[in-house]
Amino acid sequence: MRLRKRPGVREEMATYPKLVPMNGPDHKGNWRAFFGNDNPIHIELGTGKGNFITTLAEQNPDINFFGVELHEEVLIQAVKKAEEKGLTNISFLWINVNDLEDYFASGEVNRIYLNFSDPWPKKRHAKRRLTDRSFLSKYKNVLNPDGYIQLKTDNETLFEYSLNEFAHEMFLLSGITLDLHKSEYAEGNVMTEYEAKFVERGMRIYRCLAAHPMQLMAIAHGKK
Amino acid sequence: MRLRKRPGVREEMATYPKLVPMNGPDHKGNWRAFFGNDNPIHIELGTGKGNFITTLAEQNPDINFFGVELHEEVLIQAVKKAEEKGLTNISFLWINVNDLEDYFASGEVNRIYLNFSDPWPKKRHAKRRLTDRSFLSKYKNVLNPDGYIQLKTDNETLFEYSLNEFAHEMFLLSGITLDLHKSEYAEGNVMTEYEAKFVERGMRIYRCLAAHPMQLMAIAHGKK
Repeated sequence: MRLRKRPGVREEMATYPKLVPMNGPDHKGNWRAFFGNDNPIHIELGTGKGNFITTLAEQNPDINFFGVELHEEVLIQAVKKAEEKGLTNISFLWINVNDLEDYFASGEVNRIYLNFSDPWPKKRHAKRRLTDRSFLSKYKNVLNPDGYIQLKTDNETLFEYSLNEFAHEMFLLSGITLDLHKSEYAEGNVMTEYEAKFVERGMRIYRCLAAHPMQLMAIAHGKK
Repeated sequence: MRLRKRPGVREEMATYPKLVPMNGPDHKGNWRAFFGNDNPIHIELGTGKGNFITTLAEQNPDINFFGVELHEEVLIQAVKKAEEKGLTNISFLWINVNDLEDYFASGEVNRIYLNFSDPWPKKRHAKRRLTDRSFLSKYKNVLNPDGYIQLKTDNETLFEYSLNEFAHEMFLLSGITLDLHKSEYAEGNVMTEYEAKFVERGMRIYRCLAAHPMQLMAIAHGKK
């Protein structure tokens, strides 16, 4: 989604130095110090208007959250949501997911959420999908060996692609459902803005978990 | 599918001693001797009327095939098909899949086909699905470490269940498609009787491959 840039958004973002740290790479490996606690870190890639991640942050004060978003026009709305809710366990990274490893040290992230990522439907754009193996190898680096990725999408092609890419990169799949809202995983599911609209229209949501390949290695080596 | 037993089917089956060997367990570990060659062995579990497996046998004279089927009323039709086609690289096992390990030695099978298996839609019957982990552990035993399972089904719930079970049992997934006949795997796909009907009605077919867990172990140990 390419929105028209609204003048002054950048300046507005700068007025939230705690919620949108501008010197992100300086905190790499030390985000727990930034938050002032040892809580686990859960991040959402492509956080959009932030309904999902701010709701999670409200519900889970013992977890530190990050919303990662490139587009400042939607990100500013997520930031304002967090500000209005008075959340102190959330922060936003106004960055390209490509640069994730500049912001998180190896194993620093405990969970990654991918919600309704751009499906890039054309085959020649497949490498831009956030579950392409090139991205998965970045996630592997920042994700803790005990961590996992949770994927939700309404897009069948993206889901199919993601399952194959996860499996190819040796992520350990589980909780696969082809119709989230009719599944056992519906309970406790926090909806994104997109998801609420899709569900209202009776569209199905695909979902899976993909655990860090280290968990698979551990099983292969008889350690789990 | 429970068909009414037609009198004389058992006797009829006995008239095809080469196509329906009655002393199956005696050949366990020695099927290559039975066929008189060292060709790989591909088996279909729940072979029904045998369109799929006899077509494969026709197309691939350098592979030995087995159709495994409990219900003699459909199996006899598969046998007759093989007889009419004059196939010498196929045999049928009139057995329960539960007993598979009595008929094949460890690693003796190079590929397993699961086509449109009974979905056992009720949750309390899930253990009867041919991709339940209890079956997968049997397949693991008879399947060669280089081998894989190919699954096709029109049933979404069975497909979802199967993906989760394969992943749980550490089979290495690939070639996952939620709509086989619109996918790159449509070319060269051999249809079963069910499949032809489903496709005619515009129904979608789900498909995946699941490689023996040893392949995953090998990758985990850096051997692949």
